[in-house]
Formats: sequence, C-alpha cells, structure tokens
Amino acid sequence: MAKEIERKFLVSGTSWRPLADAGVSIRQGYLVAADDRSLRVRTYGDGRACLTLKIGHTALARDEYEFDIDPQIAEEMLSQAIGTVITKVRYEVEQQEFTWEIDVYNGRYSGLVIAEVELESEADLPAIPDWVGREVTGDDRYSNQALALSEGPIEFPDEPHHQSG
Amino acid sequence: MAKEIERKFLVSGTSWRPLADAGVSIRQGYLVAADDRSLRVRTYGDGRACLTLKIGHTALARDEYEFDIDPQIAEEMLSQAIGTVITKVRYEVEQQEFTWEIDVYNGRYSGLVIAEVELESEADLPAIPDWVGREVTGDDRYSNQALALSEGPIEFPDEPHHQSG
Repeated sequence: MAKEIERKFLVSGTSWRPLADAGVSIRQGYLVAADDRSLRVRTYGDGRACLTLKIGHTALARDEYEFDIDPQIAEEMLSQAIGTVITKVRYEVEQQEFTWEIDVYNGRYSGLVIAEVELESEADLPAIPDWVGREVTGDDRYSNQALALSEGPIEFPDEPHHQSG
Repeated sequence: MAKEIERKFLVSGTSWRPLADAGVSIRQGYLVAADDRSLRVRTYGDGRACLTLKIGHTALARDEYEFDIDPQIAEEMLSQAIGTVITKVRYEVEQQEFTWEIDVYNGRYSGLVIAEVELESEADLPAIPDWVGREVTGDDRYSNQALALSEGPIEFPDEPHHQSG
C-alpha cells in the first residue's frame, strides 16, 4: 500500500506549458464508489492501464493500492463505469524537487485545468509556481470522483482556471 | 471479463465429505460494495490471494473480473475491509461434469454450509446430489456480501444446513 499525499490547485494562465512534457491522454471511470473509498480504472494513451483502490477520508492523504491491468480488460471495465468517463491530458512539470501533474480536462469538463503536487510527507512545503492559482485540496467539487459522479450541469465559479482552448 | 453463472444451495448432512477434496481455507472481505457491484479481497490457505470485482444484478449470472495479487497486500486490504472478514473452508466435489464448491463457514457463521455449482450456461441442468438441500440462488441473505455486511445477530431459519461441528 502506498500513501498518497497530495495538494491540489487550480491553474491560472498557460505559462506552465513551455515547462511541461509532451503529456499523456487519460480516460478514467469509477467502478465502485463510497464515501471514503473508490475503485477507479484508467487507460493511458501510451497503452498502459491500471486499477486503483483509494481508501481514506483525509483530503491530503489517502491509502492507495494500484495494479497494472490488461488494457482490453480496462476498456471493458470503462464501459461499466458509474457516472461519467472523464478524459483529460496529463502533463508533468518539474519544479525543484517536486513534480507537478497538470490535468487539462476534455469533454464535459473542457476548460478545467487542475495541478496536483505529490508530497513525501504532509509537512513538505513545495514552492508554489506563479501559474498555480487557488488551492482546492479538500474541496470535494474538484475531486475526480465528484467530477465523474456529479449529475446535471457543471457549475464552477468563474475562476481564472476556466481557460478556453 | 468472465461471466459467473452459478446456483447456490444449502447443504444437508455430511454425506458429501467422503467425496470432497482436502479443502482450502479462505479469508475474505469487501473493500467497496454497492447495490449491483462489489470489490472483494480473498486470501487462500495455500498462499494465493486475489481481488475480485463483480458487477451485475442478476442472481444467477454476474460479470466477474479477478486478479491475482500479492498476499501481503491482500492482508493489508483485509484490515481495511468493511463489515466482517469471513473465514471458511472450501471443499470441492466432482459430480458428473459439474464441480460443486462447498463452503463450511467458521467464526460468526459457524454451522452454515453452502454449496455452489458453477454453470457454463444458464440452461445447464446439473443433477442435484442428495446432500444438497434447499436452493438459495438469489436469496440475498446467503450472498457473501450480505454475510459480510449484515450487522447484529445472525438469524437463519432452523434449517438442516445448520450443522454443529
């Protein structure tokens, strides 16, 4: 079991783009979800696929079990996901010792851009780059689970992260 | 994805025992559960462990995805199971072309003995051995999920399957 400790932010502007890698496309859906735990299946544009079980209430840290699985099985599972299958492109930006993952959402959430930084410990204090906007760690509206399972129209406040294109 | 098609029965008497293999002990728990789907982790006395996702409403047939996993990870997962971790010994009895799995429950469900026969198609009609009692296919009280997640005292009708020892 790995401990997942991460902080999550909205992204403002596009000044991160020259710093980022080529990105990888991701499709993901939830297979089972409860208050404090979820099972997610994900396929990557590079052919990988994985199954991830997350357990825990804390916004900052959760237990995470991840398994590589056969991509064809993952596709079958995606067709049985609950809620919306989310598509996004994930970019990585290295900043000092920290890796920022920047998710640019497509489809239903087109325009939404979220940055996550994974920490070694909850006490880590990464420098916050200037393209990083408001912190949304613990804001359930921005959890991937909420994005996948919410129904009806998506309402995010008119924030700078809501970029066009 | 495999299709799981099975019928489930209570077991009466012990005349199946001379026909059975040596049996393997099983510990299992549910990690996430919803109405029509569940994620189960299981460890076997012979050192194997697996993770099983079942999806589907029908009592007779469900979609099943199963993955072998590291036994130590399975133990960690069991410690995070919801509800009761069930322990039982599974025996197999071959009868004509069909394999009967006989689960002898321990712990909280000591005395409960359930037989399952896995079918190739829903039209299969296995001969029912004389040690097989009332059919409980589709009786939610006898699903492993219900056994794991039910709270309070266990109440089964006074049936012949409730053997002592």
